[in-house]
Amino acid sequence: MWILRPFFFLAMVAAAQTTAPEAARTWRQANEQAILSEFTTLLSIPNIARDLPNIRRNAALIRSMLEKRGAATRLLEIPPQVPNVPPVVYGEILTPGATQTVLFYAHYDGQPVEPKEWVGGDPFKPVLRDAPDPRIFARSASDDKAPLLAWVTALDALKAARLPLHSNVKFFLEGEEEAGSRHLGEILRAHKDLLRGDVWIFCDGPVHQNRQQQVVFGARGSVGLQLTVYGPRRELHSGHYGNWAPNAIVMLSHLIAGMRDEEGRILIAGFYDDVVPLNDRERRAIAAAPVFDEQLKEELWLQRTEGNGKRLDELINLPALNVRGISSAGVGAQSRNVIPTSATAEIRLVKGMDSRRAVGKLIAHIRSQGYYVTEQEPDAATRLQYPKVAWVQPGDGYNGVRADMDLPIAQKGVRAVESARGKVILLPTLGVSLPLAVFEEILGAPVIVVPIANHDNNQHGHNENIRLQNLWDGIETMAALLVL
Amino acid sequence: MWILRPFFFLAMVAAAQTTAPEAARTWRQANEQAILSEFTTLLSIPNIARDLPNIRRNAALIRSMLEKRGAATRLLEIPPQVPNVPPVVYGEILTPGATQTVLFYAHYDGQPVEPKEWVGGDPFKPVLRDAPDPRIFARSASDDKAPLLAWVTALDALKAARLPLHSNVKFFLEGEEEAGSRHLGEILRAHKDLLRGDVWIFCDGPVHQNRQQQVVFGARGSVGLQLTVYGPRRELHSGHYGNWAPNAIVMLSHLIAGMRDEEGRILIAGFYDDVVPLNDRERRAIAAAPVFDEQLKEELWLQRTEGNGKRLDELINLPALNVRGISSAGVGAQSRNVIPTSATAEIRLVKGMDSRRAVGKLIAHIRSQGYYVTEQEPDAATRLQYPKVAWVQPGDGYNGVRADMDLPIAQKGVRAVESARGKVILLPTLGVSLPLAVFEEILGAPVIVVPIANHDNNQHGHNENIRLQNLWDGIETMAALLVL
Repeated sequence: MWILRPFFFLAMVAAAQTTAPEAARTWRQANEQAILSEFTTLLSIPNIARDLPNIRRNAALIRSMLEKRGAATRLLEIPPQVPNVPPVVYGEILTPGATQTVLFYAHYDGQPVEPKEWVGGDPFKPVLRDAPDPRIFARSASDDKAPLLAWVTALDALKAARLPLHSNVKFFLEGEEEAGSRHLGEILRAHKDLLRGDVWIFCDGPVHQNRQQQVVFGARGSVGLQLTVYGPRRELHSGHYGNWAPNAIVMLSHLIAGMRDEEGRILIAGFYDDVVPLNDRERRAIAAAPVFDEQLKEELWLQRTEGNGKRLDELINLPALNVRGISSAGVGAQSRNVIPTSATAEIRLVKGMDSRRAVGKLIAHIRSQGYYVTEQEPDAATRLQYPKVAWVQPGDGYNGVRADMDLPIAQKGVRAVESARGKVILLPTLGVSLPLAVFEEILGAPVIVVPIANHDNNQHGHNENIRLQNLWDGIETMAALLVL
Repeated sequence: MWILRPFFFLAMVAAAQTTAPEAARTWRQANEQAILSEFTTLLSIPNIARDLPNIRRNAALIRSMLEKRGAATRLLEIPPQVPNVPPVVYGEILTPGATQTVLFYAHYDGQPVEPKEWVGGDPFKPVLRDAPDPRIFARSASDDKAPLLAWVTALDALKAARLPLHSNVKFFLEGEEEAGSRHLGEILRAHKDLLRGDVWIFCDGPVHQNRQQQVVFGARGSVGLQLTVYGPRRELHSGHYGNWAPNAIVMLSHLIAGMRDEEGRILIAGFYDDVVPLNDRERRAIAAAPVFDEQLKEELWLQRTEGNGKRLDELINLPALNVRGISSAGVGAQSRNVIPTSATAEIRLVKGMDSRRAVGKLIAHIRSQGYYVTEQEPDAATRLQYPKVAWVQPGDGYNGVRADMDLPIAQKGVRAVESARGKVILLPTLGVSLPLAVFEEILGAPVIVVPIANHDNNQHGHNENIRLQNLWDGIETMAALLVL
């Protein structure tokens, strides 16, 4: 009896002293090479959503990673009539006696790549460089394969430290987020019972620009749209026909300039009608968050920003109309003195309103500028019939959403994150267009966003990367949330 | 004596009946395969002005083609400190006792190509197709190697028919017309004595859209300009930064839309100040020319044209501001939801005024829109210093020109062309931006334009071609002008 006492005492001390984040740090420091090796394997599989064979290779690897940590896994798919849809990888660890279920979201697909623009030329060959603050460079290194690595490493750490889970834990890894989550709603509806729970922890997006951890209660919505306008059927010599043949670039420039001013103000009739303004709690959260605009401008070589001098954290709570690409004929060495035949722009509507209504208003605006708008590629007869023709191809979109910042389960999540990262920044809206609305509308549970990536991660561009320190911090944060 | 008479009589009849155009037709009909074979050899040598090794291969072949017809040839170059300038190929046939010198101009370089956009994938592998109205497809088939083939074939025909030349004849083949004729002035000044003469016959551009021969007394000027504006240093996620980071495409769209309306009207202050209006003789010529606008619109799938309904032949006597290419970030499959870092447009000013003054006015306009304009690529300090930065790279330009339609030597040329082609259309201005002004200013002799190519030749675009019939007609036209 007496002999056992010191042992019992020491165990008590250990239990009192070792928190989940501490256990995660101890484990990580002892196993960095193995952790990075597992991440390298994951990042080496190409993951563009339309590349189904590689998407399925990703899914198979993710299942094995989760199963190795004791999760039961399966693929969530929609009925066989749509076989080319990337599957969701689902994993669960049920805890006997648990009274609460926590669901974790990430996605394993990535944005399209232009290999020649990447240093090294291969977005799927991960490289660790940029010491003394090293980063891992690869497509989806931060967006959005990092959370998966953080989860499984945190599970290893908790197991090694014998720290038990308290909740049922479910993992949901989407495979077509970067392709617009086109089948997400169907998949959620088909597996509604499986996906029941008390809170979704969305692991996507970056921490604050000052590198401080943030927890965010909503996200901007998004809907894409491709717009093509037409000049003559074939390229014409600008000397012979300039002043007579309509110039498609000029037409498109007038359209774009008429949609949006240089401060970001959208000039389309009624575009702001449905915007829900920030409430007091949200305004106070923004006011309390650090102001980082001047450092960001310096970093981005910007003397001015849009929005008449308002803060970034405030501006992302307004709808935005972003033109994300434009192309017609050639420039530079490929320039020829022609009048181009068509010009294409990609417009992204980032907003707080209903995405279909927003597209409808934009199309109405194009019509008001004298265009015949068609959703089919216009043929010769159409182009001969109407003075101005615009081909509009809207994508699927999702709406913006903001959860109540005072919800008890959300506050519990915030305290867990603080146990790992100290004081955290709370914000009403994350810029990244996560499909939060789809989850809230179909499943009912609130969603909070706990990102781990660095903001300067070249997300969606070339040379995407994650700071190693962000990955290490993320493991500790996820350990804290796994024992919620 | 008696025996010789019928022979003499027949020779007299032949001399009275065979004109130069008739001799050209007879010769061509008997030698079509050999003529096309020589053309194929010429078109097979790539001829982009900056590709000096191939440019020199072209020049060598052209010399041998002219020498074979009895011309003395040489290369006209500028001093050795600029070794990378495409040479002019010069050839002359001096006629004893001639009191007049006629100079012929064409150019042997061509516009840049995008092989993958060509049917067959090789712009330098000439193909004859599109029966029953066949065309030869190759870069420079019409712009501007066809006149050379017409000249040498006409010389063969005149020799075979024993039709003598009456004038000294000089041939001038430029090698960097499509690159802006950057050294043309220097070459003309360096060889001013050699290039003296009474009239220049410019063989470039197309015949009228109704396929009727035209003689034109002037050409539009031209000056290019590349314009780049800047957003953030790197691509940013449009969700995180949309509404805050300046969008370079939107900036460029506002700039373009502010420069020019959708009817072609240039909105830059003072842009029309120096325009010399058409005189009565020129207005009458335009009124007498066939109206072809409706057919052209049908052919080009255009319901409307710019210029508030004015005729093409009239509109090309006004300056034009053409945006010939635009590019920023990606569209279609390469689209990513980013805010682009920069946007570049190629703007071509086609005008009747001084090209440098026109560029100056355009730059003043960009400044008036709040831009800091630099002709150097802006560095970080520059981009951090100014709210809006535009990098402007003006090209070399040449001015527009119109010769007096009533000049006797010009009228003589018109009659020669009519002897080959019947009634011809006379117009004050050809749309194509030929360096006529440089010739007139430096050498003093008037210039008339006698084009042979079809208008629907995809000049400067992909699948450039010449109708075989236009080539055959051109041989007859050149035969008539060679015996001027």
